Amino acid sequence: MHTFQEISRLFEQHLSASLPFPSEQENLYEPCRYLLHAGGKRIRPSLCLMAGELFGDIAEDHFHAAMAIELFHNFTLIHDDIMDKAPLRRGKPTVHAKYGLTTGILSGDVMGIFAYHCLGRIRPRYLPEVLSLFNRTAIEVCEGQQWDMDFEQKKEVGIDEYLKMIELKTSVLLAASLWIGAVIAGASAEDAGHLYEFGKNMGIAFQLQDDYLDTFGSEEQTGKKPGGDIRANKKTFLMLKTQELAGSGERTILEGLMAAGDEEKVAGIRRIYQELNVDNINKDIISQYSEVSFSHLDKIDLPEERKQPLRELASWLLHRQY
Amino acid sequence: MHTFQEISRLFEQHLSASLPFPSEQENLYEPCRYLLHAGGKRIRPSLCLMAGELFGDIAEDHFHAAMAIELFHNFTLIHDDIMDKAPLRRGKPTVHAKYGLTTGILSGDVMGIFAYHCLGRIRPRYLPEVLSLFNRTAIEVCEGQQWDMDFEQKKEVGIDEYLKMIELKTSVLLAASLWIGAVIAGASAEDAGHLYEFGKNMGIAFQLQDDYLDTFGSEEQTGKKPGGDIRANKKTFLMLKTQELAGSGERTILEGLMAAGDEEKVAGIRRIYQELNVDNINKDIISQYSEVSFSHLDKIDLPEERKQPLRELASWLLHRQY
Repeated sequence: MHTFQEISRLFEQHLSASLPFPSEQENLYEPCRYLLHAGGKRIRPSLCLMAGELFGDIAEDHFHAAMAIELFHNFTLIHDDIMDKAPLRRGKPTVHAKYGLTTGILSGDVMGIFAYHCLGRIRPRYLPEVLSLFNRTAIEVCEGQQWDMDFEQKKEVGIDEYLKMIELKTSVLLAASLWIGAVIAGASAEDAGHLYEFGKNMGIAFQLQDDYLDTFGSEEQTGKKPGGDIRANKKTFLMLKTQELAGSGERTILEGLMAAGDEEKVAGIRRIYQELNVDNINKDIISQYSEVSFSHLDKIDLPEERKQPLRELASWLLHRQY
Repeated sequence: MHTFQEISRLFEQHLSASLPFPSEQENLYEPCRYLLHAGGKRIRPSLCLMAGELFGDIAEDHFHAAMAIELFHNFTLIHDDIMDKAPLRRGKPTVHAKYGLTTGILSGDVMGIFAYHCLGRIRPRYLPEVLSLFNRTAIEVCEGQQWDMDFEQKKEVGIDEYLKMIELKTSVLLAASLWIGAVIAGASAEDAGHLYEFGKNMGIAFQLQDDYLDTFGSEEQTGKKPGGDIRANKKTFLMLKTQELAGSGERTILEGLMAAGDEEKVAGIRRIYQELNVDNINKDIISQYSEVSFSHLDKIDLPEERKQPLRELASWLLHRQY
């Protein structure tokens, strides 16, 4: 059994050695390589490989699937960054900022197609069901992104809607990565289903922790200025719960802060979060999702030591301070 | 056997009845429906169905493949229109002009994924090889679009490069549509290969005829103002051949015309094309590609009457005046 760090390094080597892009057409493929080599934790492809090792061995098909997942994820990053007008990712200029809008669109498109190219190399025995779940997941990720953009325009967003949005935008791809790795390793439909639910609930908790760190993390820990979500008026769980719990007094203060300067706004809203205890409510709900997540891992009938690497990764993702 | 018109009507009915989009998430899927219902000749999906009928019967898998091809084609149209800053398509506002840039990107993305969703419904027996050629083709279409954009910036473009660009951007998808339809109908690799070459050469001829009509067609015939390529300084075969044949006198006139007003420019460059006979050279090269195309159809060992609908369609595409 390997730890996440070891598996992640293994995938990194594979990525460096086996990117599927041809050597011609630099204008199209260089932006793809640029983003893929700009780093990233490789969580999704590693989950796929780890699921393989949970049920058996890491096979060639696992690397095809892991590459497909990483390419798909990076394709969505390029296009999301255009939609969000983001100038930086992983501390470097985003693809469209560096190469222009049209290149961003087309390089993203071709990277998405190369994801399917890698998927198509999976043995025919597994291809139909892997392709089917991959497609469903890819559609859900687009729907999650659409919800996220819709929420920016929408006045009232329910907490249930927010949780559904992060499930689609973030967590189904983590879940699918595990499911695909399990299926290719010959896991039963039931076990693969439990691993999917483990990943889905972990993913939601992971995103809620991300939101928490965005507001309450320190710059030393996270490497970015805290309060980004507050400055961008993002409707996170913290904000939506606050709006639910706020009395008329807090509502008035909130409205005033919305119009205030950045620093005053971040400090003021953070204070309201704490007064209304939503920072702890956010922690509680992370614990709830994390409990559901681990309960699914428990239901898989395998020796505990095989599950250890996934358990450690999940704990780290949920308790990380960066 | 059915004619192209009949097959095209059959696909149109299938499209109206079986679009795979869910009924929720209107903001994401309504732009997809808008473009798909804005018309189009349905040449690609019809080629897939016609290839099926050439070798046997049209099966359910043919409709899955045909839908995948039409969705993929429309996905590329949405993104191409963004890259080309095109305000109109088929006489109506383009998707991004009507719904905005971010919707154009994301609706295009999800339509491309739904193409794979439809492809994933093809029986496991044919899925791996169909997926493999579909991926190769999709990659080539993106590469063709990249070449096309590169040519706008490039000073010197070779005629070979131009022909390669239209092969990738336009004709490989026509060829793949035929190939996929043939394979699903149980055609041999050799016959499917001939049908691919028939489609590829026909596609190049089709695009050259398109270029010809853009310059020499009348508004009554084509429904659009002639000279669009000239006004946009497009490096078509007509222009590249002219640059090759022009003496120093014509070069000077050409350079002068480039800076002239639209009407003078269109009329003047059209005159030079005729003086240098490139309008007829363009016709000759269409004939050459069309000959190669039909020679591949001839090599398929089936009764002539089975090939009749494809032969008629190709003749119409190559000789059409609109």
